Amino acid sequence: MSLLHLPHHDGSPIYLDDEAPRLGTSVRVRVRTHPAHPVDAVWLRTTFDAEPVYHQMHPTDGGWWEGSLPVHNPVTHYRFLLVRGEDQEWLTGRGLVQHDVPDAGDFKVCAFDPAPDWGRDGVVYQVFPDRFARSAAADEREVPAWAVPAEWDDEVAFEPHDPRTPLQFYGGDLDGVVEHLDHVGDVGADILYTTPVFPGESNHRYNATTFSEVDPLLGGDEAYARLSSAVHARGWRILGDLTTNHTGDTHEWFRAAQADPTDPHRTFYYFDEAGGYACWMGHGTLPKVNHADPDLRAAMVEGPDSVVGRWLRPPYDVDGWRIDVANMTGRLGAIDVNHEVARAARRTAAELREDPLVIAEHNHDATGDVDGDGWHGSMNYSGFSWPVWSWLRDPASPARPFGRPAAVPRRSGERVVATFQDWLGSLGWRATSSSWNILGSHDSARIRTLVGGDAAVHRVAAGLQFLLPGVPMVFAGDEIGLEGVLGEDSRRPMPWHAPERWDRETLAAYGALAGLRRSRAAFLRGGLRWAHVDDDTIAWLREHPEGTVLVVARRAGGEAFTLPLARGTHLFGTEPGGADLEPGDGGDGGVVVPSSPGARLDVWSVAEQSQ
Amino acid sequence: MSLLHLPHHDGSPIYLDDEAPRLGTSVRVRVRTHPAHPVDAVWLRTTFDAEPVYHQMHPTDGGWWEGSLPVHNPVTHYRFLLVRGEDQEWLTGRGLVQHDVPDAGDFKVCAFDPAPDWGRDGVVYQVFPDRFARSAAADEREVPAWAVPAEWDDEVAFEPHDPRTPLQFYGGDLDGVVEHLDHVGDVGADILYTTPVFPGESNHRYNATTFSEVDPLLGGDEAYARLSSAVHARGWRILGDLTTNHTGDTHEWFRAAQADPTDPHRTFYYFDEAGGYACWMGHGTLPKVNHADPDLRAAMVEGPDSVVGRWLRPPYDVDGWRIDVANMTGRLGAIDVNHEVARAARRTAAELREDPLVIAEHNHDATGDVDGDGWHGSMNYSGFSWPVWSWLRDPASPARPFGRPAAVPRRSGERVVATFQDWLGSLGWRATSSSWNILGSHDSARIRTLVGGDAAVHRVAAGLQFLLPGVPMVFAGDEIGLEGVLGEDSRRPMPWHAPERWDRETLAAYGALAGLRRSRAAFLRGGLRWAHVDDDTIAWLREHPEGTVLVVARRAGGEAFTLPLARGTHLFGTEPGGADLEPGDGGDGGVVVPSSPGARLDVWSVAEQSQ
Repeated sequence: MSLLHLPHHDGSPIYLDDEAPRLGTSVRVRVRTHPAHPVDAVWLRTTFDAEPVYHQMHPTDGGWWEGSLPVHNPVTHYRFLLVRGEDQEWLTGRGLVQHDVPDAGDFKVCAFDPAPDWGRDGVVYQVFPDRFARSAAADEREVPAWAVPAEWDDEVAFEPHDPRTPLQFYGGDLDGVVEHLDHVGDVGADILYTTPVFPGESNHRYNATTFSEVDPLLGGDEAYARLSSAVHARGWRILGDLTTNHTGDTHEWFRAAQADPTDPHRTFYYFDEAGGYACWMGHGTLPKVNHADPDLRAAMVEGPDSVVGRWLRPPYDVDGWRIDVANMTGRLGAIDVNHEVARAARRTAAELREDPLVIAEHNHDATGDVDGDGWHGSMNYSGFSWPVWSWLRDPASPARPFGRPAAVPRRSGERVVATFQDWLGSLGWRATSSSWNILGSHDSARIRTLVGGDAAVHRVAAGLQFLLPGVPMVFAGDEIGLEGVLGEDSRRPMPWHAPERWDRETLAAYGALAGLRRSRAAFLRGGLRWAHVDDDTIAWLREHPEGTVLVVARRAGGEAFTLPLARGTHLFGTEPGGADLEPGDGGDGGVVVPSSPGARLDVWSVAEQSQ
Repeated sequence: MSLLHLPHHDGSPIYLDDEAPRLGTSVRVRVRTHPAHPVDAVWLRTTFDAEPVYHQMHPTDGGWWEGSLPVHNPVTHYRFLLVRGEDQEWLTGRGLVQHDVPDAGDFKVCAFDPAPDWGRDGVVYQVFPDRFARSAAADEREVPAWAVPAEWDDEVAFEPHDPRTPLQFYGGDLDGVVEHLDHVGDVGADILYTTPVFPGESNHRYNATTFSEVDPLLGGDEAYARLSSAVHARGWRILGDLTTNHTGDTHEWFRAAQADPTDPHRTFYYFDEAGGYACWMGHGTLPKVNHADPDLRAAMVEGPDSVVGRWLRPPYDVDGWRIDVANMTGRLGAIDVNHEVARAARRTAAELREDPLVIAEHNHDATGDVDGDGWHGSMNYSGFSWPVWSWLRDPASPARPFGRPAAVPRRSGERVVATFQDWLGSLGWRATSSSWNILGSHDSARIRTLVGGDAAVHRVAAGLQFLLPGVPMVFAGDEIGLEGVLGEDSRRPMPWHAPERWDRETLAAYGALAGLRRSRAAFLRGGLRWAHVDDDTIAWLREHPEGTVLVVARRAGGEAFTLPLARGTHLFGTEPGGADLEPGDGGDGGVVVPSSPGARLDVWSVAEQSQ
């Protein structure tokens, strides 16, 4: 039996009438079934103030079942009980199960406002300012005393424990970014996200000394205003990067607080009686801030004059924030005000801008943190990056693990799809769709290194990034094949001066994938059904009322296989070749997806078979 | 490979040094592995304020790995990363998985105080007062005007929508319970839990008119004091039953509130401007109380003069509470103060008694509601009752479903064990061990009916109830084979006068199982390892430093099988026969568990093989 014959539901428009129904209303939900996996009755189960309640679903034409889901709680859980003769199965967000399971993988519908359209439909380009581009003005700035100056072509001093690592200073600046916005356009991106631009005595600037101005080494407030204006002039968006969990120990708040126990900033931090203080993962240079303190909350996230608020207004005029260490923010032992902080940040943003976006860095399990009225989504390492890495990893790659002590192992398509599905079910459809699909970041190895330098496999990875649910975030340089074995090493300067080092074929694939995604509602908002999975192949449909597409990703060469589809029009391939799928070739009116001698990813516009 | 060769960890003393370590300390954790499933390295992964952190485990003798788990958050999640050559697996509370999964099934250690020993190690006997026993005094009481009087031997008017159902009045009373405490002792119980004893115009009394006295129809406050004293005189415990989610519409609070919008009780409920009010599942007779209101909170759960508090003191002197509809308590749409109510109830109890117990009725997914500082445990329908039902159900049984629209299907041992394990992983070891294993209750069909009247299968069910982790709760009458197709029908009076209707063999099995459980630390506090599972057989070990036991449950006849154990001494069988397991019979020094012609459950004290 084809995977496409299994019962299916997800949070996309074909299956759920409204992804953000108002509390107290009802929303129509649909389940698709096929005679190959017959079903006698379908019950919609939801929880009503934590009490299970069942609603009968009604069959409609062509194997569809329809029902009405009351949206009683802000995040309403639901699943389907499928009666099959004497047996029963559950259809949950984690897929079809044959035994009774807890609610953690239930489908969810959320009554809070979703992420803004631009944050769902766009493509994000991540710039690490010190390494992206130098304007002419950069040559005239004095290298600060703390810095270990580097030439643009110098290798990154990448050993994580080398004290020079955060000090190696290449001198990229914001006008450099302005000068290269055409390149960002070539990648197909329309949301610029820069890592922090506050002054800090480091190249990464995550240890700000103040939140009140842009680092003069980057060109200061004026340069930021120029960048923001240039981005907006293209109809694009720009995001800031703020660490809400801690500041640097050189931050003006912390210096004042440490110098004088009676200073009003003292309550901003967790000082003990001996003058010690809570900090990020034991690093004394990164004191943790106390979000239970109303003054800190007001200074950092709450209201128009908070850091979050001030930057959403001119001259900075950011369209939203990427929140660093969002997972740990407001959490310390028995204290947990994380959701209050997230809500406050989002509320502040909503008061100041029409359609702001607030995205969490969450390098672990963001379930429950991203489906409420706080963060719109997360950087989805767990639900996207690690499964992609584990499918495409070259076992011989020198890429080092990020966030775990052993390298991600190379796994079969079946195990990787199980991971995708488990995370999708846990995070929920809307939160997953609003989260960022990242192949890597300034904190991890580069995808090109992970796949052992194989450009074709790299392009397959990019296809997964752009064509699975979620918002692609491209770390600058990925698109031209830059390498890096871990986060520091991945922060290699962009080789503007060395076009011979650019993989232009891969750059073109990024641009084409971005265009393909933007041009099809199926990629922007369509559902997700796994169509075929084996060790080396993962194929899926994205379904939408405006049309359905098929994506076939191969990490290596493989045989042809059939799919129960009526026909397919070839839209895109990461490698040359690729043809339409002709009706009837696969028997029973199905189609044959052709074999391939190597890694490639193809996209077809498809018509489904009628039942 | 035997299931016993899989890597294992659970929350029992062999694997976790302290089940209630203090916040800020560390606790030693151990994983067992076997050469048949070799492991190169083990990493303990925990989350520290939602950030994943890895700690290396160290191999010790005999395949054991040991590590130190910092208890940084009140409920600390952890799991194990097993490195196996180029591959990796996770050992989580849901078992061993070969792909990356979200945290929902992680092991949990909880820094809050656990349930009191008596509430963990005891056996609960549930009495529905109207149906348990009549004292002579009952004959002298006038039948109230609302009641439809019934003779003790009358059939229950069991159709749920029959308006007479809650009114059919048999007239059992509390002195009747006192007179039959010897029988409670025969069952092996030492915790008496009665459903509500407040006055209410119904036989179930869940719709109290006041919380200030015991129903005179039950003998009033004096009778309750006699019962409480008699229970305590035996060294036993007694639990009350309180609905915190709603009151009856005849309750004095509600009458006052409804009659006068300015009445101070008005804020106890959710009245709207038109005089409508929130109620339980749409039943206007059961108005929902408003736990966001401090006055209601004080009246019901908070402090020594609240309902919760008053009954913990003489003359009632209850040792704790079973909280009715605990899952919905404090939850209404966007409002959720459930955990605050649970904490308040537990705090009130702790202020008034040395070792009180607070158990939640939660007929759904109690994950997250039972591992904190609120309810000590729940009535574990989801994690115990439904999997047992689905394994032992006679497909021809007239037993009706409870809480779902279709009867629980009969399932294989493999699927049932998957359910047990998923719920154990979700709820957590300590919460599961402190929750009640119920084969049924006054709300459901009787187990004897569910198994199609088969006494041998019924005794297997009892074996699961007493010998799996969790606290057995016996609904009065189960032990003698009473039947019932649904909750109302299961409330059949105890046939004290008709000894010929008693299944004394099953009663003896209950008593023996209770004695076996009480006599072995392995049953009270031991771990759980599945030893053998097939369609009709579920076998498990309970491991404890004081000795390990093997339980083999068969729902039907089946073949012999081998287990990698050194030997076994037969301790108990639900059916005649049963012999020691001799060393070497199973090859490789293992033992042979003999075949059986029919359903039975056996227990052996066993010695494991040395590695």
